[in-house]
Amino acid sequence: MGESNVKLVGYWPSPFALRARLALHLKSVSYEFIEENLLEPRSELLLKLNPLHKKIPVLIHHGEPIIESQAIVEYIDEVWPNAPSILPSDARQRADARIWVSYIDEKLIPALIVGLIAETEDAKRAAIAELEETVGMLERALRKLSKGKHFFGGDNIGYLDIAFGPFFLWIEVVDKFNEAKLLSEAKTPCLLRWAHKSFFSHAAVKDLLPDPEKLAEYAVKLRPILIARFASK
Amino acid sequence: MGESNVKLVGYWPSPFALRARLALHLKSVSYEFIEENLLEPRSELLLKLNPLHKKIPVLIHHGEPIIESQAIVEYIDEVWPNAPSILPSDARQRADARIWVSYIDEKLIPALIVGLIAETEDAKRAAIAELEETVGMLERALRKLSKGKHFFGGDNIGYLDIAFGPFFLWIEVVDKFNEAKLLSEAKTPCLLRWAHKSFFSHAAVKDLLPDPEKLAEYAVKLRPILIARFASK
Repeated sequence: MGESNVKLVGYWPSPFALRARLALHLKSVSYEFIEENLLEPRSELLLKLNPLHKKIPVLIHHGEPIIESQAIVEYIDEVWPNAPSILPSDARQRADARIWVSYIDEKLIPALIVGLIAETEDAKRAAIAELEETVGMLERALRKLSKGKHFFGGDNIGYLDIAFGPFFLWIEVVDKFNEAKLLSEAKTPCLLRWAHKSFFSHAAVKDLLPDPEKLAEYAVKLRPILIARFASK
Repeated sequence: MGESNVKLVGYWPSPFALRARLALHLKSVSYEFIEENLLEPRSELLLKLNPLHKKIPVLIHHGEPIIESQAIVEYIDEVWPNAPSILPSDARQRADARIWVSYIDEKLIPALIVGLIAETEDAKRAAIAELEETVGMLERALRKLSKGKHFFGGDNIGYLDIAFGPFFLWIEVVDKFNEAKLLSEAKTPCLLRWAHKSFFSHAAVKDLLPDPEKLAEYAVKLRPILIARFASK
């Protein structure tokens, strides 16, 4: 299956890179992991592989780069069609999964960035209010889509779990930064059960999860970089 | 094939709705078109169908809504698998198409909005400079991906043509607004040839294209709404 031809440029705390790694692990594809330290200037390799966005992850398959985390996940699902499949087989379920991944990318991730860079008390309050609404929508989506089963798509881990899981870790980081309670038994019982009973303990996931303490330490170092990039917008 | 069960909520000048309509026309799916006037407050129907984003287009199939233009296009491709297929059959070509659609959504569309709402001469110059870079990237992508053929994916119209074509019209609108020359034989020969020799005259496209004069008139009315929504960010 050409696994020896697979490399992934990523960085251990990057939630986008983690999406690609989760997909590779789920398909049991072995690959070489090339670290790109996001606290340093971009490497020549990354600039050459992804001149379009200068971002990780980059999957390299047979020498050719593939960029954008969700495009990589879909590519992996198509090129290694062995079980388990990542996208649901039903067209409507596929559409639902794609719609919620768009929601994560367009709403949750920008709100998490705002939550990480908020400096004043007012800015923190506004960021947490926005995140509470967004996380609440995801709680309701999980309840509706999972129909009481373990994962967003039902019995098996899939596209939406892989897209969301890496950012669940960052909701916890933002909670810690802002001394907030975005996740709680009262407000997000389904998300907590999904994370702690299903997702985190899945065989393809558990060895890849960054340590929460180390992730929070990384976030402290990442914060001034994010502020320089986003705070003026 | 259940065509009588297909409805689309859209609006004639909306490039996002046009993506969905192009996919339906390409697959020869007949549907009822429900107009949602974006210059008016959102209808109760739209708020009920798409509480998540309150946006068009919404595809209604067998009574159930599907939202997000690209999720709709992929859904249509999967539910009506008759020829022509919209996504390329090759996994790498699919990945390339998805990567460039992300580029359109993340870079071109925000830059077009900035170009539409720019008020001062400085803001207009900055917006046009950003758009020149973005349009230049798309020119080079078309040259590389089409390999001298008619469409982004080669001989046949497909995913990337459908995603980009509706926004090509808006590049022309922004050109007019700012008395710029984003599109020209010197700078974008491939994009102009693609639009005028291939895309605009395609059987599934030509009857759906809004009149450029009417689109520019609509843009004048849309502008204050966009300014209210985006200018403070």
